[in-house]
Amino acid sequence: MKSNVTKKENERNLTMLMDFYELTMANGYFVKGLKDTKVVFDMFYRTNPDKGGFVVCAGLEQFIEYVKNMHFTQADIDYLRDRQLFDEGFLEYLKEFKFKGTIEAVPEGTIVYPNTPLVTVTAPLIDAQLIETMLLLTINHQSLIATKANRICRAAGEAIVMEFGARRAQGADAANYGARACYIGGAHATATTSADTMFGVKAVGTMAHSWVQFFDSEYEAFKAYAEVYPDSCTLLIDTYDILDSGIVNAIRVAKEVLEPMGKRLKGVRIDSGDLAYFSKKIRKILDDANCKDCQIVVSNSVDEYLIESLKRQGAKIDSYGVGERMITSKSDPVFGGVYKLCAVQNEHGVFEPRIKISENVEKITNPGKKALWRIFDNTTGYGIADLLTLHDEEVSDTEPLPFIDPEKPWKKMKFENVTAKKLQQLIFDNGELVYSIPSLEETRNYVQKQLKEQVWIEEQRFENPHIHYVDLSLKLYELKEKMLSDYMK
Amino acid sequence: MKSNVTKKENERNLTMLMDFYELTMANGYFVKGLKDTKVVFDMFYRTNPDKGGFVVCAGLEQFIEYVKNMHFTQADIDYLRDRQLFDEGFLEYLKEFKFKGTIEAVPEGTIVYPNTPLVTVTAPLIDAQLIETMLLLTINHQSLIATKANRICRAAGEAIVMEFGARRAQGADAANYGARACYIGGAHATATTSADTMFGVKAVGTMAHSWVQFFDSEYEAFKAYAEVYPDSCTLLIDTYDILDSGIVNAIRVAKEVLEPMGKRLKGVRIDSGDLAYFSKKIRKILDDANCKDCQIVVSNSVDEYLIESLKRQGAKIDSYGVGERMITSKSDPVFGGVYKLCAVQNEHGVFEPRIKISENVEKITNPGKKALWRIFDNTTGYGIADLLTLHDEEVSDTEPLPFIDPEKPWKKMKFENVTAKKLQQLIFDNGELVYSIPSLEETRNYVQKQLKEQVWIEEQRFENPHIHYVDLSLKLYELKEKMLSDYMK
Repeated sequence: MKSNVTKKENERNLTMLMDFYELTMANGYFVKGLKDTKVVFDMFYRTNPDKGGFVVCAGLEQFIEYVKNMHFTQADIDYLRDRQLFDEGFLEYLKEFKFKGTIEAVPEGTIVYPNTPLVTVTAPLIDAQLIETMLLLTINHQSLIATKANRICRAAGEAIVMEFGARRAQGADAANYGARACYIGGAHATATTSADTMFGVKAVGTMAHSWVQFFDSEYEAFKAYAEVYPDSCTLLIDTYDILDSGIVNAIRVAKEVLEPMGKRLKGVRIDSGDLAYFSKKIRKILDDANCKDCQIVVSNSVDEYLIESLKRQGAKIDSYGVGERMITSKSDPVFGGVYKLCAVQNEHGVFEPRIKISENVEKITNPGKKALWRIFDNTTGYGIADLLTLHDEEVSDTEPLPFIDPEKPWKKMKFENVTAKKLQQLIFDNGELVYSIPSLEETRNYVQKQLKEQVWIEEQRFENPHIHYVDLSLKLYELKEKMLSDYMK
Repeated sequence: MKSNVTKKENERNLTMLMDFYELTMANGYFVKGLKDTKVVFDMFYRTNPDKGGFVVCAGLEQFIEYVKNMHFTQADIDYLRDRQLFDEGFLEYLKEFKFKGTIEAVPEGTIVYPNTPLVTVTAPLIDAQLIETMLLLTINHQSLIATKANRICRAAGEAIVMEFGARRAQGADAANYGARACYIGGAHATATTSADTMFGVKAVGTMAHSWVQFFDSEYEAFKAYAEVYPDSCTLLIDTYDILDSGIVNAIRVAKEVLEPMGKRLKGVRIDSGDLAYFSKKIRKILDDANCKDCQIVVSNSVDEYLIESLKRQGAKIDSYGVGERMITSKSDPVFGGVYKLCAVQNEHGVFEPRIKISENVEKITNPGKKALWRIFDNTTGYGIADLLTLHDEEVSDTEPLPFIDPEKPWKKMKFENVTAKKLQQLIFDNGELVYSIPSLEETRNYVQKQLKEQVWIEEQRFENPHIHYVDLSLKLYELKEKMLSDYMK
């Protein structure tokens, strides 16, 4: 179910949503005659949010739309000319600008780990530079929210998770694309209607406290709702007093309004108070009233930690409405993806590696144009490590595969009885979109499949998860060591 | 300087960005023949982010645009029909829907306090309900960011604050409207180019590490930049080694490239390492090299707490580039504005008060249609309290003004020698926009003026700020007490 909102949103020209320095640098490269030099940039991140074991990568589809639509309007050019910083030839060049580079990326929904390239851009210098801000923005935002939602859904287990956060989202895009990312992460539905018209994430919702307050009594409010929605009647029972009034009136409506119509009370929602205590009380009251099929929905300050606590306390909850803590990833609201130059093509067409040195060892980049592999154990099917190689290295499945663990480089190690799978796919090939974007449903299923079949349960726990190995091929390790020691000279 | 981006963004139809329950409730009201009943809703919040003393209210302009553009397209109606929940008469009604209500609100940039109505909506029931989500979303988001930016700017004092956060923002809107909110809060510029074309917030930026890495040496990179931008040459000096290489090459370029052209090195930027230590070292090196006018810009993990710490350490910093911690309000990324029904018009045209009861005393609402006043001390000019009255109460400046402090209701108190000023202005009058939206510059200046002339310095500190008094008129206090005791019966 998609309305024309999708089309309109897709046509938004966000070209000027770029850091101004992308433009000053691009102009500088243009003036210096360097615009056609090809370079390679990697997008990667350094730490998992919430000290988790992995990230659910998301946002690629919106980045693809951005790249496809990218163009500078006359108004954009006029603005830039007014800034009196830019060469007229550069402005002419921008007028005709279309992205001409090659982009490889891991598909949305891929489980990914720190310091591995999620997106690799091989493009003329200006092209590679101009897409930086939106590449980071789309992947950082949606990966953050998909990962948070996935944590919450893992905690919820069999219970339903509904995304309720629009009113606390950081802007309209955060609400819409956040709902999309939550769905990828495993949420079942959203309260945001436009997320349904745009992406087909089912929008759900029943009543707010204002509905209950509006009528002269809580009973009349519930009765009116049941009459209008006999097939989907979920009542909000905490406007006045949950036990003395809310659940009493809900059951009265079930008996007096719904059951005479042959209908059942579908659910009750609690939005305040002690959710563990009340859910158990309410479950017993409902069961005793012969409403065993009535579901209990809760929706106040829910996140993975609260859900785990509620479960430990034996709370009786069928469905969680999760708001601000998921749509903003409140406990860790920033995903720190970066975009780093790793190679520059020389006059012979060879990509020369570049490295970023830092006092902080973990900030030293992996140089060169690379490939990212996941190594699967042939016996269990689990992904036991990621492997970074130079882009043209052969990786054999049949012979023992040597690698270096950069944390313990003195150990000479080999993978045996494994299958190595390249994680990145070709998205744009010299400016042409060659990737067929999967449906949101496929992406969501892909996440679930990996978590079930390929990702160790030890990486999925919240406390001190197993740290996934990210190893280097011998060639890549030697290149990095050589560049570091050359630099020290 | 505004390009056509503003126009396009303003025309975005975000009508369907609403919680689905707004639609189920609206349909319910329609079916029950209640759609024309007039109601009053207040939008307010309960706690200041970051345990601060106040909030800088922002986002009203985008909410106004939303209300003006609000309409349901045929595709929207088709989507709703497919859901098989909505009355056909209601769908017909939505097709013609335009907001017909009255909205009063505090102007953007107003310093506001918990539990005071920032926006009051008096409208037919359906109209009031349908605007809830976007009202909360726009005001919550921009107030959050404007408040955070204001804290950072207060810490920075005379130093410049530049907003650098787009790549870590929660979506494109968070980048653009976040940059707008930061400007309202006091930031001087942004890195986000579209925030300049959309709102006229000056976009700034020079180079990334990739510029430095691209060239064969740091010196060549700096030299190339200085040649292209001799008038605005700020160099990023931490790609390899700040002291051994970065500052050395920067000064060499100042002397060998810029000074022969009669130009000066404008600035150096440090994006990593110990900002206190390096800024002092770099300041001395620059001064000794006769570059006293070269500014030091820093940009790594900056927020109000880091700035205060840097100042205590005597850091020498002219300008801060502030990224993720401002654009997401990282330390407290949710602003909890709510929208509560406070009155319903009866058949005689009288607004009957409504109250929301809660086990948590602080969640009990103030009933009735109200007015919000700020009480200014005539001697100092400072705002000594906010006062909530019933909407038709007279408030006299000339006689002592009685009030109740709800924290100490047994005290009978009076304001003397004060001026009472109504804070809300009329925005929409029965559907018609009657408010003249101030320029962003005026709004930003309004914030500064209040902080200088009207807001106690004791409310502006970060640690345990003075809690601004929010008092009730005798009539409002008595109404609330009566409703609570009636409810207990």
